[in-house]
Amino acid sequence: MTERIDGRRIALLVENDFDDREVSGLRRRLEALGAIVVVVGPSAGARYHGRLREEVVRADVAAGAVRARDFDAVVVPGGWAPDRMRLRHSMVDLVREMAGAGKPVAALSHGPQLCISANIVRGRTITCWPSIAIDVKNAGGLYVDRPVVEDGNVITSRKGDDLEPFCDALAGALLRAPMPASRR
Amino acid sequence: MTERIDGRRIALLVENDFDDREVSGLRRRLEALGAIVVVVGPSAGARYHGRLREEVVRADVAAGAVRARDFDAVVVPGGWAPDRMRLRHSMVDLVREMAGAGKPVAALSHGPQLCISANIVRGRTITCWPSIAIDVKNAGGLYVDRPVVEDGNVITSRKGDDLEPFCDALAGALLRAPMPASRR
Repeated sequence: MTERIDGRRIALLVENDFDDREVSGLRRRLEALGAIVVVVGPSAGARYHGRLREEVVRADVAAGAVRARDFDAVVVPGGWAPDRMRLRHSMVDLVREMAGAGKPVAALSHGPQLCISANIVRGRTITCWPSIAIDVKNAGGLYVDRPVVEDGNVITSRKGDDLEPFCDALAGALLRAPMPASRR
Repeated sequence: MTERIDGRRIALLVENDFDDREVSGLRRRLEALGAIVVVVGPSAGARYHGRLREEVVRADVAAGAVRARDFDAVVVPGGWAPDRMRLRHSMVDLVREMAGAGKPVAALSHGPQLCISANIVRGRTITCWPSIAIDVKNAGGLYVDRPVVEDGNVITSRKGDDLEPFCDALAGALLRAPMPASRR
């Protein structure tokens, strides 16, 4: 049973060529659980498209204008977008800061590429899309093929089909966290 | 000045979402130098599209049906295709076999992802698209930002704009190789 996470502020990172189904599914599911999903992109107000061009999302804020204290968790969807996010220092920094603050960092399919760039993989058990398993291992992570993996505050899943256990794990982690950002 | 490589057989690896400009440019330039470019994909006769859907190529042969002895060199173009090629054992094996046979392995932009999967990066100087520089380093490669890098039989470039020095380096390596596959 999934518990509610009303009022928790979740940064959903976007860049062009995200996985359409993952981004729309994450948004729908997390909002249904009561979370406030803030779309964080390279530029505030800009529109980013999915790799299948089925979905377009507008960034609420620019990654460079936010800090870890503004959110209770950060979510990195998959697709080709994480490859682009790796070149955005503000996005790499946000993930590193969130991880360092002990807040949930949840990355799906190719999302762990951004975790590699943020250097938060070493020594952690991680799952991901299989093409990047070798990169996770080379980054010092222990790769496993499971629907969802939680290691400390880093939550990972393999693909869009794992969205439900992925969101459930994130909700659980948020409920264990001390105090939501929205009330601080 | 670029020397001619008449009759040299070059395997050009393709999968969906390759970089349109790189694949068309590589093919044109290598054929202009006299090479026989063989398009190698997951399935013979199947068509693969570029990430911008501007180019479609038909695979001449399946990767699983060829061996290193059939070619004088292998070329891995960039785009999102290398991420897909990493999951094709026959493509990973072909790159590993070519590298082991001392034949030129030339990889452009995201192409070195396939070299990481083939485990031929360790101890080599490599260039690539900047997003995967950290993966190259984590795989034991020495990453440098230069238009073209040759380390033994592995030739790498950063992006489509480097196509000319990339093809020139490949042509030079082929001319230094002992005997073309076509005459064996």
